[in-house]
Amino acid sequence: ARPRVGYFYTGKTGTQLLNEKIKQITVKEYQSIPVVVNDASSVYDAIVTMFLEDVGTLFVVDGASSLTGVLSRKDLLRASIGKQELEAMPVSIIMTRMPNITVCRKDDLIIEVASKLIEKQIDALPVIKDQQNGKMEVTGRVTKTNITKLLVDLAHDDM
Amino acid sequence: ARPRVGYFYTGKTGTQLLNEKIKQITVKEYQSIPVVVNDASSVYDAIVTMFLEDVGTLFVVDGASSLTGVLSRKDLLRASIGKQELEAMPVSIIMTRMPNITVCRKDDLIIEVASKLIEKQIDALPVIKDQQNGKMEVTGRVTKTNITKLLVDLAHDDM
Repeated sequence: ARPRVGYFYTGKTGTQLLNEKIKQITVKEYQSIPVVVNDASSVYDAIVTMFLEDVGTLFVVDGASSLTGVLSRKDLLRASIGKQELEAMPVSIIMTRMPNITVCRKDDLIIEVASKLIEKQIDALPVIKDQQNGKMEVTGRVTKTNITKLLVDLAHDDM
Repeated sequence: ARPRVGYFYTGKTGTQLLNEKIKQITVKEYQSIPVVVNDASSVYDAIVTMFLEDVGTLFVVDGASSLTGVLSRKDLLRASIGKQELEAMPVSIIMTRMPNITVCRKDDLIIEVASKLIEKQIDALPVIKDQQNGKMEVTGRVTKTNITKLLVDLAHDDM
């Protein structure tokens, strides 16, 4: 018998190869550093942090660094046009809380996170690490910017 | 000679097929409807419009519906923590103006728009139609949400 050399048809189309490639990429390859504020911070402090760090989403943590809330630019903008004093208003009043926070973990597929961002109409998911007490440590964030960067890398074959 | 039937090696790898697929998608396939405010509007009105329309970027137009500026959530948040009266401040004071606005057109490749969003660190590009007087009519917008949706569609093969 002749040796099997050369190219063989794998039964896969370009689309399938593409799907396989996308479905191998995990959160840890495309996450960013999380920006957090303490749940005792004021809304004013949170707005300043959002500007200084130039992010669209802040994660709120308690004294033990466990996730307690999420603040979007929209949450802060809504608070800022209210009549209340921003320096005196704690972020815990306006933040989204558990169980309404959608999270992901570092080994999740990035495409699943992308689906959740679209489905839930949110800008970012916290990447969390489960702690023994049932709480969650925030270790990263995945935003639509990370997803956009991924598509650019796919097209430029920088992967 | 035998007829050429069956599968033939095209010389293309999965990555190349992926690149070709991504590089065929144009802005008109993934744009959203633009949300605009008149350049005589107040910052307060712009903030209300951003909430009601639930968008992250507003485009500012003159009386002839030509693009004159762009307002991001960040621009509005910055203005809202200032000490000035938001109802009395026109958006023209805080908006980004030409020639600092990056635009795209409906036949541009979506991957080029994605690259510009990353490179310029912005959330959205206006889709414009060139007018005879050198001005630009706003006909759509492309955001990182559109790009994220595209990646989800690619992975689910909904295209």
